[in-house]
Amino acid sequence: MTAATALDLTEGDLFGPDNLPYGVFTPTSAGDTAQPRIGVRFGDHVLDAGACARQCDSPHTELLSAPLLNPLLAAGRTTWQAVRGELRRWLTDPAYRETVARHLLPLSEVTLRMPFEVADYVDFYASEHHASNVGRIFRPDSAPLTPNWKHLPIGYHGRAGTVVASGTPVVRPRGQRRPPAEETPTYGPSARLDIEAEVGFVVGTPSRLAEPVGLGGFREHVFGVCLLNDWSARDIQAWEYVPLGPFLGKSFLTSVSPWITPVEALDAARVAPPARDFTPLPYLDDSAERGHEPGAFDIRITVTLNGEVLSEPPFASLYWTAAQQLAHMTVNGASLRTGDLYASGTVSGPEPHQLGSLLEVTAGKGPFLQDGDTVTLSAWAPGPNGARIGLGEVTGQIEPAR
Amino acid sequence: MTAATALDLTEGDLFGPDNLPYGVFTPTSAGDTAQPRIGVRFGDHVLDAGACARQCDSPHTELLSAPLLNPLLAAGRTTWQAVRGELRRWLTDPAYRETVARHLLPLSEVTLRMPFEVADYVDFYASEHHASNVGRIFRPDSAPLTPNWKHLPIGYHGRAGTVVASGTPVVRPRGQRRPPAEETPTYGPSARLDIEAEVGFVVGTPSRLAEPVGLGGFREHVFGVCLLNDWSARDIQAWEYVPLGPFLGKSFLTSVSPWITPVEALDAARVAPPARDFTPLPYLDDSAERGHEPGAFDIRITVTLNGEVLSEPPFASLYWTAAQQLAHMTVNGASLRTGDLYASGTVSGPEPHQLGSLLEVTAGKGPFLQDGDTVTLSAWAPGPNGARIGLGEVTGQIEPAR
Repeated sequence: MTAATALDLTEGDLFGPDNLPYGVFTPTSAGDTAQPRIGVRFGDHVLDAGACARQCDSPHTELLSAPLLNPLLAAGRTTWQAVRGELRRWLTDPAYRETVARHLLPLSEVTLRMPFEVADYVDFYASEHHASNVGRIFRPDSAPLTPNWKHLPIGYHGRAGTVVASGTPVVRPRGQRRPPAEETPTYGPSARLDIEAEVGFVVGTPSRLAEPVGLGGFREHVFGVCLLNDWSARDIQAWEYVPLGPFLGKSFLTSVSPWITPVEALDAARVAPPARDFTPLPYLDDSAERGHEPGAFDIRITVTLNGEVLSEPPFASLYWTAAQQLAHMTVNGASLRTGDLYASGTVSGPEPHQLGSLLEVTAGKGPFLQDGDTVTLSAWAPGPNGARIGLGEVTGQIEPAR
Repeated sequence: MTAATALDLTEGDLFGPDNLPYGVFTPTSAGDTAQPRIGVRFGDHVLDAGACARQCDSPHTELLSAPLLNPLLAAGRTTWQAVRGELRRWLTDPAYRETVARHLLPLSEVTLRMPFEVADYVDFYASEHHASNVGRIFRPDSAPLTPNWKHLPIGYHGRAGTVVASGTPVVRPRGQRRPPAEETPTYGPSARLDIEAEVGFVVGTPSRLAEPVGLGGFREHVFGVCLLNDWSARDIQAWEYVPLGPFLGKSFLTSVSPWITPVEALDAARVAPPARDFTPLPYLDDSAERGHEPGAFDIRITVTLNGEVLSEPPFASLYWTAAQQLAHMTVNGASLRTGDLYASGTVSGPEPHQLGSLLEVTAGKGPFLQDGDTVTLSAWAPGPNGARIGLGEVTGQIEPAR
């Protein structure tokens, strides 16, 4: 098809004018050393946003010509809305048709890069079903949920430097693990390599030290949403994690989708979170009576293993919302930086076909990931007027330990 | 005294020609918006390293004219040695005396800044005495050390975005804590605000994903050493940390000293680590028979509370060394970035006057830090020929919760 018809999407396209997610790409033909550019996905094409902005004399040309999304993230919500309005106009107003067509590249001709520089990376643990399942497997002699679980969104910091773009090979990690019934640990490649299907939130607007953000700050501070696979070596994790939490069992790699969907594109996907068993403390109380908009998102994830559907985790089932996680993460005065990434924790629903990790799918017994396996997460959410909003896929293939 | 006599240090000065730590400063008179510059401490003065390099036609003028240490950190060990050699020549060779004197500023006339941009921040838990003391307080019904403790250096990721320069006010954090014998948590200012006296290691040379660094990589990858106070809210920490480790109890603030002492300046302070109860797995086995240099450092820390000596923790007593921590942190293939910071964990020795936290000093009972309290860590280590190498002080004063 010609570039002009690239603007004529088929009905139901997951990347229509109500989505407009941002990424960073290089034309594949330009090689690895080409300067990365900001792209906006439209159907099966990528709009070279900086080049289009320049030709349209956009006031946001500089922001859209950066090699990463960070300057746009830092620009704040008013600018995010203005840029989104412009992109929508360029991609839907017939007056721009010829201009825009010159800056559309087929997806098949670009290489997608890590779209932003991660500042801090935090991983939560917000699915009651996941936390209960894992608790039963890792701590069979205790209650599945710890006493704090329903009072606060439990989280921990992960390694920002090993958050990578979708498609990066997943080299099987080596490390210490202690086989059951043995006294001392052994060293070698992880034999229990797993996935965790998660949704990630990308912080745009920073906050000041010692100033909590609060539940109402979600739309001001959070720019967008991605899919995230928190690769996990269960044997390494089980041996190391008491008392200070996961470390090397997670830090070898975390993969994110190449497209960051703006929070605004998910307005039609907002739903009420599940009923809580306790009323949370006021700083976490997101009830409608207190004036809060629905904080959950109806994002429907599909996990495939070597092309076969493994699971369909429902993000709306999570006990804690992203707004609550943001409020909790900053309640002690910890500041936010542009590029902070925080993830939901593994998304598992109540049903057997809704589990977000192999640990749960196999009740702790495995099999886990084999060398050569490929895992892909994809997702969509309801958009306005029956449209569907696609989240970018995140995929990775397991390579043997080195 | 005149600038020229600033070069004539008194005997035993902690910041003589064998030390030469790096920092970042602005002349106080220039105000908050002045461009930060790299400084090297010499006695009670700071050498404006970029300006001096320019006047001396140094090939490292550009590196030394950066507003942060990161470009110098990234330049690698050969450059670190060359720059150190130049600085030493400038500060000790009479031929440079007049030139250098023009670029020395009294410490009292500069404001010291955060010297580098932190990439990832990892905190270890390497003192057997500290881990045992804390285990007895936090988990009175279990063995004080977890079964993994003597097999691997336990660590976790902290919040890089809230690592701040010495002198930054410590605003008392708010958060959730559950008072003993109560069912549900309450919210409010931490009532058990504490210190943790630690030594931090600053990574210069990055490493590649999926390529462990190994014990021998310490000198290639680690640029220097600082003091670090890992402020801790014990009540928040105790309620949140099971099962995923410390989060808000730590993430509100971590203070570092303004001076980064090069690893090379601590050569005379290298000592053998304590005898281990188990031979570690080969990737952690640092014994002399395997060709490793002594991995511990004889750094003697003093903690003062409101000017009175609280404790004198001996860094050489730690069970795990910084080289072992580096090898462990990367054994799973996690990569290093320039600016990564990893800390030893609280330094506590075996004696009652050697404890690195109020939790231990008061056996868990308090009193903890009060509003208005000031805590300062200082330290020195043996240098060549009887010299002493000072580490920069890290200090902070507690402000009331907001």
